[in-house]
Amino acid sequence: MESVNQYLDENAQRFESEFFDFLKIPSVSTVPSHADDVQKAAEWLANRLTQIGLQPEIVKTKRHPLVYAETPAVPNAPIVLIYGHFDVQPPDPLDLWISPPFEPTVRDGSVYARGATDDKGQLLTHVYAAEAILKAIHPLPFQIKFLFEGEEEDGSDSISEYVKVFKEKLACDCLIVSDCEMFAPGQPAIIYGLRGIMAFELTLTGACRDLHSGVFGGAVYNPAVALCQMLNKVIDENGRVQIPGFYKDVVLIPDRERKQFADLPFDEKEFFEKIGVAKGFGEKGFTSIEQRWARPTFDINGLTSGYQGEGSKTVLPSKASAKFTFRLVPKQNPEEIAKNVEQYLQSVCPPEIKMELEFQHGAGGLLVSLDSEFVEIATAALEETFGCPPFFTREGGSIPIITEMSEVLDADVLLIGWGLDDDNLHAPNEKFSLACFHRGIKASARLMEEIARRQKGKKV
Amino acid sequence: MESVNQYLDENAQRFESEFFDFLKIPSVSTVPSHADDVQKAAEWLANRLTQIGLQPEIVKTKRHPLVYAETPAVPNAPIVLIYGHFDVQPPDPLDLWISPPFEPTVRDGSVYARGATDDKGQLLTHVYAAEAILKAIHPLPFQIKFLFEGEEEDGSDSISEYVKVFKEKLACDCLIVSDCEMFAPGQPAIIYGLRGIMAFELTLTGACRDLHSGVFGGAVYNPAVALCQMLNKVIDENGRVQIPGFYKDVVLIPDRERKQFADLPFDEKEFFEKIGVAKGFGEKGFTSIEQRWARPTFDINGLTSGYQGEGSKTVLPSKASAKFTFRLVPKQNPEEIAKNVEQYLQSVCPPEIKMELEFQHGAGGLLVSLDSEFVEIATAALEETFGCPPFFTREGGSIPIITEMSEVLDADVLLIGWGLDDDNLHAPNEKFSLACFHRGIKASARLMEEIARRQKGKKV
Repeated sequence: MESVNQYLDENAQRFESEFFDFLKIPSVSTVPSHADDVQKAAEWLANRLTQIGLQPEIVKTKRHPLVYAETPAVPNAPIVLIYGHFDVQPPDPLDLWISPPFEPTVRDGSVYARGATDDKGQLLTHVYAAEAILKAIHPLPFQIKFLFEGEEEDGSDSISEYVKVFKEKLACDCLIVSDCEMFAPGQPAIIYGLRGIMAFELTLTGACRDLHSGVFGGAVYNPAVALCQMLNKVIDENGRVQIPGFYKDVVLIPDRERKQFADLPFDEKEFFEKIGVAKGFGEKGFTSIEQRWARPTFDINGLTSGYQGEGSKTVLPSKASAKFTFRLVPKQNPEEIAKNVEQYLQSVCPPEIKMELEFQHGAGGLLVSLDSEFVEIATAALEETFGCPPFFTREGGSIPIITEMSEVLDADVLLIGWGLDDDNLHAPNEKFSLACFHRGIKASARLMEEIARRQKGKKV
Repeated sequence: MESVNQYLDENAQRFESEFFDFLKIPSVSTVPSHADDVQKAAEWLANRLTQIGLQPEIVKTKRHPLVYAETPAVPNAPIVLIYGHFDVQPPDPLDLWISPPFEPTVRDGSVYARGATDDKGQLLTHVYAAEAILKAIHPLPFQIKFLFEGEEEDGSDSISEYVKVFKEKLACDCLIVSDCEMFAPGQPAIIYGLRGIMAFELTLTGACRDLHSGVFGGAVYNPAVALCQMLNKVIDENGRVQIPGFYKDVVLIPDRERKQFADLPFDEKEFFEKIGVAKGFGEKGFTSIEQRWARPTFDINGLTSGYQGEGSKTVLPSKASAKFTFRLVPKQNPEEIAKNVEQYLQSVCPPEIKMELEFQHGAGGLLVSLDSEFVEIATAALEETFGCPPFFTREGGSIPIITEMSEVLDADVLLIGWGLDDDNLHAPNEKFSLACFHRGIKASARLMEEIARRQKGKKV
């Protein structure tokens, strides 16, 4: 490890400067005019992989490319597949950025740029770790595969199809993902659970055009009123979802895990204060960590109807719509729930109103066994790098493609992130701490080295 | 009348051409960059009034000007005050206009332009009627006052203040307003009732910023969910308003009036078909005409929260807001209702949510006595001009400034409109039938002539 760490220290400056070049490419996947930039980012990354001795391929898809590379196969040895994404969120609103989103700027030890932590910086930690390991250990007694996508912020459709078709090529024992956060600065975490998600858009139509609310009001069903009535029946005032069968497969949180959550150094008061909330709210009988990490829920993400400008307009709108999501916990069946949601909404829709329900996307939750050897290795690597053992946590968010890849490839998942909770993901002034960047590289290298060491041990 | 009608026929061409010039002025009162155009329209109108021998004044206000003019005072004779407005709605969306909104274009006997029927065309009918009458009868044995505003589409604040301050100058026996519709083509109406209105905007705030719905969902009250819950408590599923005391002062519709409504040649099926509604909806026990003309109601006019773009966004919004209006019937007390609405919403607002209620504007309903001599005169004038007696109707809409003027000036109100229900008020391709324009002028002239005749009769 001495030599690996020495190599990493000697090259730290170059890693940063290359990382910044990567950040300068505005690879916004959702905006068609940036398609060339997403392609450029793929090429930049392929070039980087070539320089560490691999023969990457840029996989063309219906939309944005994938980048795939692998070290030589080793019979009967473990395979790790490293996932990451090189596309980024749109930078809007631009006027809230202190420095331009695609001109990486260092302030207070962090680099500010769109994609800094999500996910270019975190992705690169594994590339640089592999660079050092490939220099230090040859032949490498296990195989590393890299699969990077350019569509994560836009639904991951292409990689989803690719993984299904090329599941033998991508076969692996462990999927390593750094598209997540540490528990706190200096305190690493191994995330072993994610919630699933189901996203819908409900559109209600009353009259075929907007009406004058004076001339027609009182005799025509107002779809905005109907929308409130219907959504009000989806969740009750205690935060319980009312869709029939919704809780059927929800696994109660084991006492051991509840204790583990309760033992985390988590200041609930401070947590709510930071977001300007005087008082939390949610399902009774659960702590806020339990509510967010291990209980399913319902949120309205958007409401749209009628007049939204300044002042008032006496319109009886023709349409009203809502975007909403359910967060699911592992074992809940997204397909069954989608069916129940549709049936239930149909049953509470007034006969005067036409309803359309669009299912937007969905994925089940993920719960990784903590008994895997990779978790044990990662625990040691993180402890050695950060000087303290990782916390074992779950996350309330969803990474649908990870749930899907773990199922299709039947692999363990190691979610170890280097982000911090104030990194402004998807928001203006996204940043990535350079200390996290370099420590992430070292932790990843330590992890690979430990896999190699155990593998060599086996051979002896 | 022979000579008056002859004069009107001889000048019909000029009236149209002047009317079209008036329509070319884009006097949009709500858009600050059009302030000069509103001023131009005021000057155009003042110029027109000068040409018929009056000495109009352009009254400066805090916002848009008023135009006032009067014929010589006649002691002990009636005074009629003619109200109208020369400002227009914004023309957006522009791309839906077949011909440009400020280039009046005649198609199928109607002139298409913003403001054609609302209210430049209707307003001018009384100006041209007065022109003819002033030529034919001198001295005029009663007094005509004209008060035209440039702010009707933007709240009528200036005229409201002006009327309060100058109520002696504006003293009148009857207020004549043509900012409304006929019952059907060729079928005039005298509108004797308007609903009142109370407009509010409710804004709910949860966290101080938008949150990630995965990270926070389940532990933080979602203001969009709270909005649905609260609005759902304002009106029940039978269309009854739930604000305490809301129906306290609502006068039951007299049997005589119910019969009168029922006798109108109104095809309910066709009415709903035209707006693409399979089935009406509203308070039980009332016909759709009763629901719209003589019952109070509640409508949501706009809903706004979270993400409204394409696709989905996993946001737990910080804010959710609704614009909504109550329509009131005469005798309901707007002030008391506003207080009750605020108290009720406060009482049903979850403690985790901050609420702000903005009262936007309001006015009580209007119910005009049908026993007035002016109604009798107008009935005769309309019958003579259109060849059939007018229907007596109410309207579901509100003209707050008319309610207010009738109260402040203690005057009868004569609501006689020349518009048709397909004139596209406030919408693209607004039009005004030229037949309605000329018949409106004739009906107004007949009305004035009849007032003069009766007055002369009195003198004898």
